[in-house]
Amino acid sequence: MTESPRDRLPELSTEEKASLLSGADFWTTKPIERIGLPSIMLTDGPHGLRKQAEASDHLGLNDSVPATCFPPASGLGASFDPELAERVGVALGIESAIEDVAVILGPGINIKRSPLCGRNFEYVSEDPILSGEIGAGLVRGIQSRGVGASLKHFAANNQEDDRMRVSAEIDARTLREIYLRGFQRVVTDAQPWTVMCSYNRLNGVYASEHRWLLTDVLRDEWGFDGLVVSDWGAVQNRVAGVAAGLDLEMPSSGGHTDRQVVAAVESGALPIEALDTAAGRMLDLVGRAQQRPSVAGPLDVDAHHALAREAAGRSIVLLKNDPVNGAEPLLPLAPDASIAVIGEFARTPRFQGGGSSHINPTRVDTAWDALSAEAGDRAAFAAGFAFDPRTPVEEQARLRDEAAALAAGRDIAVVFLGLTDPEESEGFDREHIDLSPVQLALLDAVLAANPRTVVVLSNGSVVALPFADRVPAILEAWLLGQAGGSATVDVLLGTVNPSARLAETVPHRIEDTPAFGNFPGSFGRVQYGEGILVGYRWYDARRMDVAFPFGHGLSYTSFEYGSARVAELGDGNLRVVVPVTNTGARDGREVVQVYVSVDESAVERAPRELKAFASVEIAAGETREVELAVRAEDLAYWDIRVDRFVVEPGTYRVAVGASSRDIRSSAAIELAGEPILLPLSEDSSIAEVLAHPVAGPIVQARLAGTRGQMDEAMDAGVMGDEAIDKMMESFPIGRIAGFPGMGIDREQVAQLIALANAPQG
Amino acid sequence: MTESPRDRLPELSTEEKASLLSGADFWTTKPIERIGLPSIMLTDGPHGLRKQAEASDHLGLNDSVPATCFPPASGLGASFDPELAERVGVALGIESAIEDVAVILGPGINIKRSPLCGRNFEYVSEDPILSGEIGAGLVRGIQSRGVGASLKHFAANNQEDDRMRVSAEIDARTLREIYLRGFQRVVTDAQPWTVMCSYNRLNGVYASEHRWLLTDVLRDEWGFDGLVVSDWGAVQNRVAGVAAGLDLEMPSSGGHTDRQVVAAVESGALPIEALDTAAGRMLDLVGRAQQRPSVAGPLDVDAHHALAREAAGRSIVLLKNDPVNGAEPLLPLAPDASIAVIGEFARTPRFQGGGSSHINPTRVDTAWDALSAEAGDRAAFAAGFAFDPRTPVEEQARLRDEAAALAAGRDIAVVFLGLTDPEESEGFDREHIDLSPVQLALLDAVLAANPRTVVVLSNGSVVALPFADRVPAILEAWLLGQAGGSATVDVLLGTVNPSARLAETVPHRIEDTPAFGNFPGSFGRVQYGEGILVGYRWYDARRMDVAFPFGHGLSYTSFEYGSARVAELGDGNLRVVVPVTNTGARDGREVVQVYVSVDESAVERAPRELKAFASVEIAAGETREVELAVRAEDLAYWDIRVDRFVVEPGTYRVAVGASSRDIRSSAAIELAGEPILLPLSEDSSIAEVLAHPVAGPIVQARLAGTRGQMDEAMDAGVMGDEAIDKMMESFPIGRIAGFPGMGIDREQVAQLIALANAPQG
Repeated sequence: MTESPRDRLPELSTEEKASLLSGADFWTTKPIERIGLPSIMLTDGPHGLRKQAEASDHLGLNDSVPATCFPPASGLGASFDPELAERVGVALGIESAIEDVAVILGPGINIKRSPLCGRNFEYVSEDPILSGEIGAGLVRGIQSRGVGASLKHFAANNQEDDRMRVSAEIDARTLREIYLRGFQRVVTDAQPWTVMCSYNRLNGVYASEHRWLLTDVLRDEWGFDGLVVSDWGAVQNRVAGVAAGLDLEMPSSGGHTDRQVVAAVESGALPIEALDTAAGRMLDLVGRAQQRPSVAGPLDVDAHHALAREAAGRSIVLLKNDPVNGAEPLLPLAPDASIAVIGEFARTPRFQGGGSSHINPTRVDTAWDALSAEAGDRAAFAAGFAFDPRTPVEEQARLRDEAAALAAGRDIAVVFLGLTDPEESEGFDREHIDLSPVQLALLDAVLAANPRTVVVLSNGSVVALPFADRVPAILEAWLLGQAGGSATVDVLLGTVNPSARLAETVPHRIEDTPAFGNFPGSFGRVQYGEGILVGYRWYDARRMDVAFPFGHGLSYTSFEYGSARVAELGDGNLRVVVPVTNTGARDGREVVQVYVSVDESAVERAPRELKAFASVEIAAGETREVELAVRAEDLAYWDIRVDRFVVEPGTYRVAVGASSRDIRSSAAIELAGEPILLPLSEDSSIAEVLAHPVAGPIVQARLAGTRGQMDEAMDAGVMGDEAIDKMMESFPIGRIAGFPGMGIDREQVAQLIALANAPQG
Repeated sequence: MTESPRDRLPELSTEEKASLLSGADFWTTKPIERIGLPSIMLTDGPHGLRKQAEASDHLGLNDSVPATCFPPASGLGASFDPELAERVGVALGIESAIEDVAVILGPGINIKRSPLCGRNFEYVSEDPILSGEIGAGLVRGIQSRGVGASLKHFAANNQEDDRMRVSAEIDARTLREIYLRGFQRVVTDAQPWTVMCSYNRLNGVYASEHRWLLTDVLRDEWGFDGLVVSDWGAVQNRVAGVAAGLDLEMPSSGGHTDRQVVAAVESGALPIEALDTAAGRMLDLVGRAQQRPSVAGPLDVDAHHALAREAAGRSIVLLKNDPVNGAEPLLPLAPDASIAVIGEFARTPRFQGGGSSHINPTRVDTAWDALSAEAGDRAAFAAGFAFDPRTPVEEQARLRDEAAALAAGRDIAVVFLGLTDPEESEGFDREHIDLSPVQLALLDAVLAANPRTVVVLSNGSVVALPFADRVPAILEAWLLGQAGGSATVDVLLGTVNPSARLAETVPHRIEDTPAFGNFPGSFGRVQYGEGILVGYRWYDARRMDVAFPFGHGLSYTSFEYGSARVAELGDGNLRVVVPVTNTGARDGREVVQVYVSVDESAVERAPRELKAFASVEIAAGETREVELAVRAEDLAYWDIRVDRFVVEPGTYRVAVGASSRDIRSSAAIELAGEPILLPLSEDSSIAEVLAHPVAGPIVQARLAGTRGQMDEAMDAGVMGDEAIDKMMESFPIGRIAGFPGMGIDREQVAQLIALANAPQG
């Protein structure tokens, strides 16, 4: 074909068009050899390529060609750095291109509604803006190499339990502000080639058949111009899906659903235009894939491993690093210290999660190898525990005692704890957020033997840290990809100065979390009862103590903030500028965060919402003017009266800080916003009528007349003056008119409404 | 008329029928003189009669004939005693009958969803069973005297903010288990003559037009045979209301809506049958009213005041009564103690709330009068603060200092604190749960002067008690009606041994409460996001600390519980028996509470749900076998799959205690329950198929065949064995069949489903 595949659409038969709408097998689309249309391959992602080498098995889970395993999203998100994400995306694009993969299935940016969600390790954050920014970075990077991304899982796939049927019941505002906002950001900023619809239902309708979601919102509102592909196995009713805007079903249905589509077109149940639209988009996707610049192999394994190591180092959050006995903190490790390296994770790292994202890595670094290479005989290892839960208690005790003895004889103990594969994976949710009792007992024994203990955590989603007060230093090392071991040692030794931040709150207990009691639902429904108060929004609104707050992360240097200044640009966007000084002795990277609140908002808002952030390298002693852009659209709330985002008039508080609970400087700005003036009706409350520019003064005068009667009522003591005022404010004016003897009749109310709603001259 | 009014229905014209469907004025219905049908009067309630003496004003708020003011529901509910409520109901019935009132508007049993609701003082509890039992007692009592009750506000009127429009958005299970359950109990147990529909909307539809609520549920499911009356001004669309089952509109619409009804019947928009039904019910109500036995006046004011005093004494909760310095507790007050009586509430009691329930009492007792009458010169009074918020700071300081000085010179200080009328009323919600700073400052000053301080609280809904740790004795005296002052002194002196219990949790902070962040909603919608976890269910599920838990209340004596025994009666009801011994030196009354939980329930349940309770008088040294009945229906959850209450099979834990957090004895019982076996379909998950008695074994065998293939996949390390099992469990069997090469095709799935669903032979 010399022209674009799309031009060939008119030549295709109904059967050929329908054939394009489902896969040929597990990973590829159907070719149409008659017109020279090739098959293309889509394959997992998101943090590395998972291309199955041989014929795929029925679940698509068998071995894949080696690829670089970059940090999963839970790690990369903690970098708070879309540019880093973009560089990782470029590498993913290159690896895909070398393997002739047209679309890599990622990024996944679902909101971490509950720490229990089994797939949280594949997701970025509990915050939509951070999720969107990191996701957009990845998409830009991937697509810069002529490979398509697939933004997933659209939408509200926030749990694994009953994931193929459960209906996420979400009110309109919460859906828009929390669960769709990140997707909107990625679509509008980075135009992914494809979006993957999720398994679940949203407010009763399968995402794979959700016309409002896949067409009205995604395309008509956001301007998405790519293809929608089903999550693997997400199709329930293929014909309904085509009508709704689901273009491509994966994997193959063996021709079954193609025949259904043809029959529906022939019977008139499905308009031919719907088929043409979907088939045309499939042709467009093939066309895009055909334009990929050729990338010469083989893969530069070393260079990509180095990037994986850099990204992993940027993903590690230094949660705590207290001075010990009034002296220095334990980290970075003193150059001459003798070190007990404890915990099976140091030798057998868990660096990715189970399921569709599982990569066959090109190599794997372990922390023990990396540390012993640096420290030589100063370091010694003890496993401390065995992963296998069937290990006899006596054997675990022996390993524990051995580790404690090792710790007792060394200057410092570094204990590697975390979640094992069976505890956390795609396909099921966790039931608690605790580390295993065996690991907690190990830590207790080590602490008793040597309080100079550092904990390093390997986990895809947060765990409770009941020991946080007793351990002087803690590194949250997430799942870090194949170079996580060496990257962890980079941070332990100070070669890398930690700069990552918590993209999700670490709560004290699962009972404290927002979705508790509403997760994972039952009988196919889950209520998102916490509404917009997801993650830190919940803890802040309820003024709850947490173990470590959203945005938190320490450094080996220190930063001071000057006074923040905020200005509105002509377009409603804000520019925030704050001077930040590295006041320590080391170069370092600070993540400056901007949180916004609105005084007396028309709606319940969280006390702080992240609206901008910047990861900035600042040399020791240097001061940088950090400039951050807050978009007008991000200041808006979703107004259910007018069904759109609205920036309300008022005072906006702009808080700049090093975490959501470490605000260093604040500024306020008045925004004119967009006052919503709804037409008056009989249902308008007295308060609304009084606030109306035309009707208000008229009714004010009228009420003054009846005020005397009310005062008489008040004298009877039934209600106070103020109480009557407040009660009356909520009365619809039409009901007042219905009351006997209120001094305003229905006709007068009708006249008033007509007057108020008349076009203003 | 000699026969029943209902018999005259066929004689009525359409206009006459329509005329019956709305009031003649604020409080009375329209007569039809042609057939001798009289007008009847409906008037406020609920805790005393509020019959306006003269022509009513337009809001119906002016002065009313004197009546006995009994404790509002927030007090009476704390008695945990439906028999006491019934006795109060009898008195209300007598007062109504004397005044020729046909229907008294109450009881109100809306759930206390948030302590902020301005009308909580009129409601019973945060628990539906307690609300229903107290409500049923009141209805039985009122109606025993031939006067109708009006159960209100039906339904989900749990806030005052925007109450005339707001839509309470509640999922089906929460609605049934929490917000409707109490109404269901009163309707089925006590058959109130009337039910009052609420102002608000429920899931988008005005209660006054909600056919499902007013007809399908109330009448068809519950068997209600009375009349539905609108809350005053609740009618939005009268014709829709008639069709939905709203029989009587109050107050008068001036004939406006009567004409609408006639026009709708004439146009065919409203079936004549709907008009006949509503008019017939109105005739029935008049007929019932006509059969009231005559009650001779005048009112026995003294006898009813004595009952009001008894009920008030039974409503006071002794929250705390710690020993002071290792000696005796402060309460009851030592006979020879000198007492500083402090706080304006002791002299000017707040004994009822503002709004429609506001009674013109026959007399009012004050605590100061009652106490000084008993203690003579041993008691002295200081106001301590002034109610008026405009009082100059200096004047408040002077009053405070004066009170502190008085406290310093006396053995004991009794400080009366509470909420004033402007802080709490029908018509608006509170914005916080704090006592005023002036009162808190007074308490601090008194405590500093004399730590031997008792606090007595007057408040219709809970207040935060930040001083609870510093005050040795606290009485929660709610709003207690006109005899509250003397009743409080009865308890202070020990004439009455306190026995009331908290019908609502006292939280530490408003931020801890279940509806926080979802209350009062905005733009006409409020999400009941906390679902079933209302009140103590929330605090228990989230394992939160509270100031004082639901069901808590101390006594001047002590009780010991023996072992509880539980047995299932033939009908599925349970009998719980527990021996309780009064181990102290005083006679006393214990409220024995039964909480139930279900092991591994199919749905998320609260850890403890109140299912039965008994208020039992036990003499000092006596042991009583307390018997409590738990109804099978109360053990059921609402199953959204089959849309009805279901008692699931399983182990039920029956916990018997003196409060929700003071469980004294537990027992378990296995109930056969009703296993729900749904037909299988393509949407059935593998887990559901495996659990099916017919299909399970077949699929088990089939899966064993593919297990080998999965193990190969596992060897690739993508997922563990268990993880794959868990993931597969949630796969719908129809989707599995759709996957390429799964070894089970669509036809086989269809056969399996047909086999499983075939009638068992």
